[in-house]
Amino acid sequence: MLTLYYAPGTCALASHIALQEAGAAYTTERLDFRSNQQNSPEYLAINPKGRVPSLVTDRGILTETPAMLAFIAQSFPQAKLAPSDAAFEFAKAQAFSSYLCSTVHVAHAHKMRGARWASEEASFADMKRMIPKTVAASFALIERGMLKGPWVMGEQYTICDPYLFALAGWLEGDSVDLSTLPRVADHMKRMAERPAVKQVLADEKS
Amino acid sequence: MLTLYYAPGTCALASHIALQEAGAAYTTERLDFRSNQQNSPEYLAINPKGRVPSLVTDRGILTETPAMLAFIAQSFPQAKLAPSDAAFEFAKAQAFSSYLCSTVHVAHAHKMRGARWASEEASFADMKRMIPKTVAASFALIERGMLKGPWVMGEQYTICDPYLFALAGWLEGDSVDLSTLPRVADHMKRMAERPAVKQVLADEKS
Repeated sequence: MLTLYYAPGTCALASHIALQEAGAAYTTERLDFRSNQQNSPEYLAINPKGRVPSLVTDRGILTETPAMLAFIAQSFPQAKLAPSDAAFEFAKAQAFSSYLCSTVHVAHAHKMRGARWASEEASFADMKRMIPKTVAASFALIERGMLKGPWVMGEQYTICDPYLFALAGWLEGDSVDLSTLPRVADHMKRMAERPAVKQVLADEKS
Repeated sequence: MLTLYYAPGTCALASHIALQEAGAAYTTERLDFRSNQQNSPEYLAINPKGRVPSLVTDRGILTETPAMLAFIAQSFPQAKLAPSDAAFEFAKAQAFSSYLCSTVHVAHAHKMRGARWASEEASFADMKRMIPKTVAASFALIERGMLKGPWVMGEQYTICDPYLFALAGWLEGDSVDLSTLPRVADHMKRMAERPAVKQVLADEKS
């Protein structure tokens, strides 16, 4: 049995969808960010970073979305959630995940999490003003080259797709004009039609 | 044949060492960051992100250190640079790489690359003042729990080790007191004694 720790509206949505698509036996534990539950002693014992997602497995605890997605894909090979033909194609999927976590997510995080990297209110305001531009720039590279279509890696639906969907869900709140990203917008629509995605979104809202 | 695009002093050192440890047939192309060569049309055709490292392979081009390290480990299995026993251990290594790229490297980048996320000189100065604290905090989690010893993953030397070594090389310049990180400091010393590491450092300086 797997247990996913998540909070609604976070990148944990990617792993949640991947578990559902994989047909995994899993349960979820929702953290309340408003009460700062992610920094409670109980949760820090699971993930000392105080972040979501975390995945508790029989072997131990995993953190970091790119690693969790690769683990889910490799643990449920029958779901074909990762390119299986060669190290190169798997690495391409990992490169996409890595770009999302280290560039796209980080750009977005400067809207509300500026205190991770600065201390002055004026700096936070400066960072917030940059959000529409920096987030749009990080998605422009996806739009122009990384998203092959119809899915991220091409014809095969992979772990890259729920990860893109999770982060693309922040675009509207980040004041990025979706009409400048037609391929990303089309991807979002197609993702929202998948039964696994509908199920997970309903679960996270309930 | 593989071709690594790198610049001295960057995280590309991790992939450079991994290629050398793997016994790979590879060549290197050094970029001159002072003349902004990473944003030249020629290099942007290789990596539209304008960053290093990039790895040109027979199958195509790879970017993003965590993906490149996994590709090198899987392409040269005889070098045993990745845990091979199960998806879980491989995912643990990927989680370590992901933490380095999305948290540790990002913390460090706020010293010189503040313009990625803000626009005011005062914000850049604010970010720079935070560097010793934020970088130290990101390494404290490595010191306390992630670095199992003697190598990151325990007894087996893996792709995690050159990546940690590459980023730990920034600690002194970031004014982090290495005496607070004795296990990381010990790891740096042991890494510096490896023939592959000596060879790569000599190549990058020549």
